[in-house]
Amino acid sequence: MATCTTKTDWSLLVSEKRSSNRAKIPLEWRLSSDILDTIDEKATISVLDVPGRCGILTEVELELTEKYDATDLTRMMIEGKAKSEDVVRGFCKRAAIAHQLTNCLTEIMFEEAFARAKELDEYLLKEGKPIGPLHGLPISLKDSFNVKGAHATIGYVKFLENSPASHNSAIVEILLKLGAVPYVKTNLPQTMMSADSDNYVFGRTLNPNKLCLTAGGSTGGEGALIKMRGSILGVGTDIAGSIRIPALCNGIMGLQPSAGRIPWAGGTPPGRFGSPSTILPVIGPEGHSVRDLELFMKSVIDTDPWLLDANILSVPWRSVSPPRRSLNLGFITEDREHRPLHPSQLRMITTLIKTLQGIGHSLISLDDKIPSVYETSILAWKHFLLDPEKTPIKIMKAGGESAVKSLLVTRYPELQGWEASLDELWDMNVERAKITKIYHDLVIDNELDAILLPTYQATAVPHDTYGLVPYTVLANFLGYPSVALPFLHASKEADKPFIRSGVTYIPPYEPDLVEGVPCGFQIMCRPMRDEELIKIAELIVKTIT
Amino acid sequence: MATCTTKTDWSLLVSEKRSSNRAKIPLEWRLSSDILDTIDEKATISVLDVPGRCGILTEVELELTEKYDATDLTRMMIEGKAKSEDVVRGFCKRAAIAHQLTNCLTEIMFEEAFARAKELDEYLLKEGKPIGPLHGLPISLKDSFNVKGAHATIGYVKFLENSPASHNSAIVEILLKLGAVPYVKTNLPQTMMSADSDNYVFGRTLNPNKLCLTAGGSTGGEGALIKMRGSILGVGTDIAGSIRIPALCNGIMGLQPSAGRIPWAGGTPPGRFGSPSTILPVIGPEGHSVRDLELFMKSVIDTDPWLLDANILSVPWRSVSPPRRSLNLGFITEDREHRPLHPSQLRMITTLIKTLQGIGHSLISLDDKIPSVYETSILAWKHFLLDPEKTPIKIMKAGGESAVKSLLVTRYPELQGWEASLDELWDMNVERAKITKIYHDLVIDNELDAILLPTYQATAVPHDTYGLVPYTVLANFLGYPSVALPFLHASKEADKPFIRSGVTYIPPYEPDLVEGVPCGFQIMCRPMRDEELIKIAELIVKTIT
Repeated sequence: MATCTTKTDWSLLVSEKRSSNRAKIPLEWRLSSDILDTIDEKATISVLDVPGRCGILTEVELELTEKYDATDLTRMMIEGKAKSEDVVRGFCKRAAIAHQLTNCLTEIMFEEAFARAKELDEYLLKEGKPIGPLHGLPISLKDSFNVKGAHATIGYVKFLENSPASHNSAIVEILLKLGAVPYVKTNLPQTMMSADSDNYVFGRTLNPNKLCLTAGGSTGGEGALIKMRGSILGVGTDIAGSIRIPALCNGIMGLQPSAGRIPWAGGTPPGRFGSPSTILPVIGPEGHSVRDLELFMKSVIDTDPWLLDANILSVPWRSVSPPRRSLNLGFITEDREHRPLHPSQLRMITTLIKTLQGIGHSLISLDDKIPSVYETSILAWKHFLLDPEKTPIKIMKAGGESAVKSLLVTRYPELQGWEASLDELWDMNVERAKITKIYHDLVIDNELDAILLPTYQATAVPHDTYGLVPYTVLANFLGYPSVALPFLHASKEADKPFIRSGVTYIPPYEPDLVEGVPCGFQIMCRPMRDEELIKIAELIVKTIT
Repeated sequence: MATCTTKTDWSLLVSEKRSSNRAKIPLEWRLSSDILDTIDEKATISVLDVPGRCGILTEVELELTEKYDATDLTRMMIEGKAKSEDVVRGFCKRAAIAHQLTNCLTEIMFEEAFARAKELDEYLLKEGKPIGPLHGLPISLKDSFNVKGAHATIGYVKFLENSPASHNSAIVEILLKLGAVPYVKTNLPQTMMSADSDNYVFGRTLNPNKLCLTAGGSTGGEGALIKMRGSILGVGTDIAGSIRIPALCNGIMGLQPSAGRIPWAGGTPPGRFGSPSTILPVIGPEGHSVRDLELFMKSVIDTDPWLLDANILSVPWRSVSPPRRSLNLGFITEDREHRPLHPSQLRMITTLIKTLQGIGHSLISLDDKIPSVYETSILAWKHFLLDPEKTPIKIMKAGGESAVKSLLVTRYPELQGWEASLDELWDMNVERAKITKIYHDLVIDNELDAILLPTYQATAVPHDTYGLVPYTVLANFLGYPSVALPFLHASKEADKPFIRSGVTYIPPYEPDLVEGVPCGFQIMCRPMRDEELIKIAELIVKTIT
């Protein structure tokens, strides 16, 4: 195959790729031009209502895709009360719609999904038992996971030259074994290191809540797709917030588990293998309910993922009970100096704290007890710049592509010209251990069950302005699992009292633009306590909804 | 305090340190000169019989120190059938004797131990319950662990200037909480990176089986002490074999657990903090029975060591049953090209395999399926040379000391002049992942319960000739927990058929010198399966004894 060296070359490849995707959407699932004509990355409209009113889904398909979570759906399918074929068709239709509205998909595998769903239905009928706990469930996957026969360009022009995957990622292998049905892969940012899922191969994913806003990244295609209920459960990756940022931006739930629990092997990385950083990428679920996040974690870990990935801990998923006492919760409001909370997020976290206090939980402010969250994130970011070869840039250059705009705003001015060295890496590790110990001691000394903090200083913001991600990368830096949950929505009126004078909002606070979009927070917990984190999240969600 | 810069300076400090140690051995526990006059690092005698015949221990003390393991002793103390004071006195006496014969101790804390034993006895009497599962048990500690009030020079002349420790290592803190009684710290090699426990501060530890042989390292003081039954359970560290090598050399048992299980915090490291290597040092027990190794692991992990060390996994110890079926055991005989087995170890591993096959276990040779164990160990060793500052050498220079002889034989000719770089570290990680995957696939494809291999190509060898440690560092490299067990003894007669012509033994095979000393092997198991490893080891020990 030809090597791409000029834009002319790759423009052609890209348009071929996009057409081939479009061709996989059946004609009868195409939206009418009166809807499509309203779609624009500057449009301030929501498209969340389109699946319900476009007439493409049957009543049954609308019910199947809207009324249940993954836990319900799998139970229904396992009990024979719903057919995988119907469930899969519903979500395929809805994914096709979501894609036409938000540009969230990268690979479309509808045909393969129908075939598998039929097989699964037949298996259940014949054998009287499901293949596994995810029997028949359609699951969407970030583009970086490999599915045999599908591309994994991860948005690199250069990777358009690669053949379709000849193997499944370990997690895909496990999901298949559990009975799940892969049907789409989803969009992500160039290099996977920004909060705008935009790249030259697939273009930009839009936020279904408001098209002019980012859908988040790097698991942004999932975020938009799941919010549209074009997926009931999706799988993403997270090294700095890539699961939780789209959860915030779209208003869904996302879990960044402890490192070493969900197998990483066999995926397509955006950079070089062999990083000596101990801030590790993780795989986790995005979805609509906390119990669905647990369904994913428990089902996957119960298969002993070490069998497919030597780097994964062979540590069973533990059954834990929800705490039956009031909780000790630390909370971080903001790094006021560097990234003060926008009024909507300030109202959200204030309301959250008051609500939890109101029902008897103990809330302890950590704001004055921790080092600057922003400065901690600089140290974290150094870990992502350890490759002297700068492989992502090499791949971009090899494909003849330049940096997309959002990549340019995901750079620390403090790190301009900074070059990693082996010697400094030792010092970085020592520095990291010091900060980790501060949090560790706070958890121990205050007997904290968990720590609450905003997912970001703002809600979803206009494209290419999200910038740095100090509030999410903190959990990766500490090695703490963290779940991102939606709570409240931006409201000009309600947020007004939370506007502070003398505060510079980064990016700018634009109340009209973000009106009505979801706010959100994180709960993080000590390492390897994903089980407890889930139970605490369930309890808190019950309280605030 | 004055800075040591010349040998004259430190000779004085060293002799002060040694005298102060000697002074802590009560006069009535001193051995007679007719015994002491036979002690020499060239002597070919065993001193194992001295405690029994020197008249220093009472009949009861001899029984307490010889007849039971730690599991027995703690049960007896908890049930009130033995007093901690008696047990502790017995082991203190015996440790004093062991020290006079093998030079195994670095810090003597007899007085503190007596006081604590008395308190524990009183507590049990008064409260009717023990302090914890290790109630009253004397436990010996490698010198690198910190015990409040005691030095941790770890054999560096420079560290003689340091004040006594103002804190306990996390593991010491936990052992105290469990009811254990620290009473001695034990010798180790200069820099902790050789298999001869020799340094300028404390001198050399001799092998009690035969004084002219190495006691192993780096946990060599423990090895000699435990073999003399001057300790019933000791704690060491292992990054390349430092627990298992002394286990082999002395003929005891030692467990190198999975990384991240036993807390490392608060110890005195021989080098720089912040290593980016993912071959991690671990802490583990040395003792007389497999169940004692489990007693240590379970007791410590049951306290949730994460509470004291943010780098430790918060993963509970699992209760597992011994396998009730025949085992699938992989085995590695040797790296014949680089480090062929000496006849004694070849007979040992051959006998082991035959014996296990004889009772129905399935034994699968991995010799032709794995890359050279020696070459793998070169890659492992690079991970230990990542510090551009070469901190251990700096500390030695600062103290005015040169390298001891054994350090010079622990160098890879292949790595002469090699300097680490950040770029190569990425490649090293990739290379390591490849090799790890080979083993991983072998374990999976053959459904291996464990892998057997020799602990070293020979038995204990003459001082300063042990050299490189490919057979032990393999487990650290793979991240596999490994237990070292004694089996058979070198025997000129029995080993003769195992002498191979055309084989160059490194170090030289000297049948007369090693006559009668222990042989030994390792069992290693997939990561985080320490629980299963213990059960398999118990089963194998039952078979071969």
